[in-house]
Amino acid sequence: MNRSRLEAFSDGVFAVAITLLALDLAVEGPGHGNLALLLADRWPAFVAYLISFFTIGIIWVNHHTMMNSVVAVTRGLLYLNLLLLAVVVAIPFVTSTLADYLRDGWPNANTAAALYAGVFELMSITFALVSEWILRHDEYVRDPMSAAAKTPARLSFYAGQVPYLIAFVVAFVSVWATVAITAATGIYYIFVRTYAPPTPAAPKSPPE
Amino acid sequence: MNRSRLEAFSDGVFAVAITLLALDLAVEGPGHGNLALLLADRWPAFVAYLISFFTIGIIWVNHHTMMNSVVAVTRGLLYLNLLLLAVVVAIPFVTSTLADYLRDGWPNANTAAALYAGVFELMSITFALVSEWILRHDEYVRDPMSAAAKTPARLSFYAGQVPYLIAFVVAFVSVWATVAITAATGIYYIFVRTYAPPTPAAPKSPPE
Amino acid sequence: MNRSRLEAFSDGVFAVAITLLALDLAVEGPGHGNLALLLADRWPAFVAYLISFFTIGIIWVNHHTMMNSVVAVTRGLLYLNLLLLAVVVAIPFVTSTLADYLRDGWPNANTAAALYAGVFELMSITFALVSEWILRHDEYVRDPMSAAAKTPARLSFYAGQVPYLIAFVVAFVSVWATVAITAATGIYYIFVRTYAPPTPAAPKSPPE
Amino acid sequence: MNRSRLEAFSDGVFAVAITLLALDLAVEGPGHGNLALLLADRWPAFVAYLISFFTIGIIWVNHHTMMNSVVAVTRGLLYLNLLLLAVVVAIPFVTSTLADYLRDGWPNANTAAALYAGVFELMSITFALVSEWILRHDEYVRDPMSAAAKTPARLSFYAGQVPYLIAFVVAFVSVWATVAITAATGIYYIFVRTYAPPTPAAPKSPPE
Repeated sequence: MNRSRLEAFSDGVFAVAITLLALDLAVEGPGHGNLALLLADRWPAFVAYLISFFTIGIIWVNHHTMMNSVVAVTRGLLYLNLLLLAVVVAIPFVTSTLADYLRDGWPNANTAAALYAGVFELMSITFALVSEWILRHDEYVRDPMSAAAKTPARLSFYAGQVPYLIAFVVAFVSVWATVAITAATGIYYIFVRTYAPPTPAAPKSPPE
Repeated sequence: MNRSRLEAFSDGVFAVAITLLALDLAVEGPGHGNLALLLADRWPAFVAYLISFFTIGIIWVNHHTMMNSVVAVTRGLLYLNLLLLAVVVAIPFVTSTLADYLRDGWPNANTAAALYAGVFELMSITFALVSEWILRHDEYVRDPMSAAAKTPARLSFYAGQVPYLIAFVVAFVSVWATVAITAATGIYYIFVRTYAPPTPAAPKSPPE
Repeated sequence: MNRSRLEAFSDGVFAVAITLLALDLAVEGPGHGNLALLLADRWPAFVAYLISFFTIGIIWVNHHTMMNSVVAVTRGLLYLNLLLLAVVVAIPFVTSTLADYLRDGWPNANTAAALYAGVFELMSITFALVSEWILRHDEYVRDPMSAAAKTPARLSFYAGQVPYLIAFVVAFVSVWATVAITAATGIYYIFVRTYAPPTPAAPKSPPE
Repeated sequence: MNRSRLEAFSDGVFAVAITLLALDLAVEGPGHGNLALLLADRWPAFVAYLISFFTIGIIWVNHHTMMNSVVAVTRGLLYLNLLLLAVVVAIPFVTSTLADYLRDGWPNANTAAALYAGVFELMSITFALVSEWILRHDEYVRDPMSAAAKTPARLSFYAGQVPYLIAFVVAFVSVWATVAITAATGIYYIFVRTYAPPTPAAPKSPPE
């Protein structure tokens, strides 16, 4: 099996999930007062939307980077990838729940924040499972990493689970701390890669 | 006609259907009591979501495996594939109906469970129709199966219709038996393939 | 420009539109009486769903067949294709409106049926515009049709507009006649192609 | 990294966003009076739908044209592209808000129009950021533009931000002026390209 359909299907799921996020931005129709105030009042939905959008986006970029080195896929990898997608698909739901309950006070806001961070933690874990599969199957990988390079790669993607775990735990103390930690983790991952073959030099001649 | 657009379109439909499943996880907004209890109370939705997600996922994996051997598609195959997709697309609807009615008692819970198992049965039947087309059109298949290999392949995918038929019938007796059988069938198919060319050896050199 | 992104984007739009159709099958939650009766009462939604699903599916198959002969696309073709997609995307809306109003009596059922047939007519017209572009741009087509072959091809896809026009007109007399004509037209197009290069012989050796 | 997954993911997001636009066309079910009047009364939704559909469509065509010249993508480009998509995904939300509030009078209609034009302005800005990246990275581009050609290209896509800025400002004076300007801008861009490598001559022989 080649990897192109795995990528196409994953891209489809990522694309639909990321687009459904925005459905939750909707405000009520006329007859509910000043629209500017209604919109301003929805700011938690915008914050949650932005964090979730870029977190899914970053996972997609890293998925892209990671799969790029795989030359063939097995059913095992397809099912691990399905696990990851099952979590990604739940992100619009937890985002919308967080947006709705963010200002509802103890204990509902805390439950919503813990649910949010918990699903991000699951996403991080399932992503690590896929990464681990790739690190253990050199025979399916183009230019497999050296054993020496695998240790920091593993550290990097297992470390990725720490901030979301912290965000989950602090949700019971401060909802805003959870929001801040998940946002900061997203920003951090824009600049750091979990699975890192060397950046290719700019191509000199057009491939293909 | 080559098969790439059939795959792209099918992947799109599978990806959208699998992502829409999660829309039904949504809980009510603030003002309906403790969120943790609301979420706990939605557990039938989570169970139904997981079964449906992995059943669609498995069908996608098997679709992938099966189509991989097809070298060209005819209009006949396109329409059989459309029949399969028409059923896949109905899965979010029956999943959401089951989640809503699972604890509603006789007869509504039973109707919802029968509807759920019935659509899974239809999915299994339409998948068998596509498989049968492929088994009968060696001229469109790369490395067609020997006549001897076709018998167990047929047995495998026609047998796949038995558990969903049982799940449908027992729905009128026990809703939970239906849920258990559909879940067990999904788990079974993670480990067994309906259409089974030999697993390729791990590639030695990168293809392409 | 090559045609692959036009196909990928169109496939995405077709796949999302066809999947959204099923959203309208949803029934109300518990507390509205017998579920079997609720479902039976929704039969117009199932009929409308099936007609729309297969009509979009057939258009997708014909789009596939037609684009298969195009070797490069221009901005003109991209915009004509967008027109077609703008109509396809409206099909879930008119399907859901028809399902809701089918049994509402004069004049609402008739309005809904006319809206339904009207959008199918627009789909047929925009499809003909794309087909016409292809017939007029031999330089972008692999194995362009002979002038003699173009006449029946044109007849075929312009004739396709007649049944939907009739279905639109009779909507003001009989809603059921409209439903029957749109269903029959769909079935007819399963067996007849609007744009018809000769069916390729089954390949002897795997292409690629 | 090659650009195919960037395109596939972007196409998926564009396709879902463009299809979700039509969800907002839905009218209420039976019991709300004459359907023809209900539909006629929804005309602002149809206008907003058409403007948004073709604006997203045009952005997709231009994205297609622009990416066609890129031979490899970096993480920087992926993240700029994500920014653009984050804005595209918000278009169904602002379209639906405009449709709902278009006739609500001062100040809500004006807020909705400003929100609409504001998101189109953001789309134009993020599109310019992607274009600017490409103009600055000749080493990732096939047949990079000459320095002389870059000046008018830049002018063209930076100028694209002027009409949406005007539409945003006039929203506080006249909602209809905003609608007219965004519609006119869309029509204008059907005929003018922001990023313009010379149109390829029609191919003489089939590529591929």
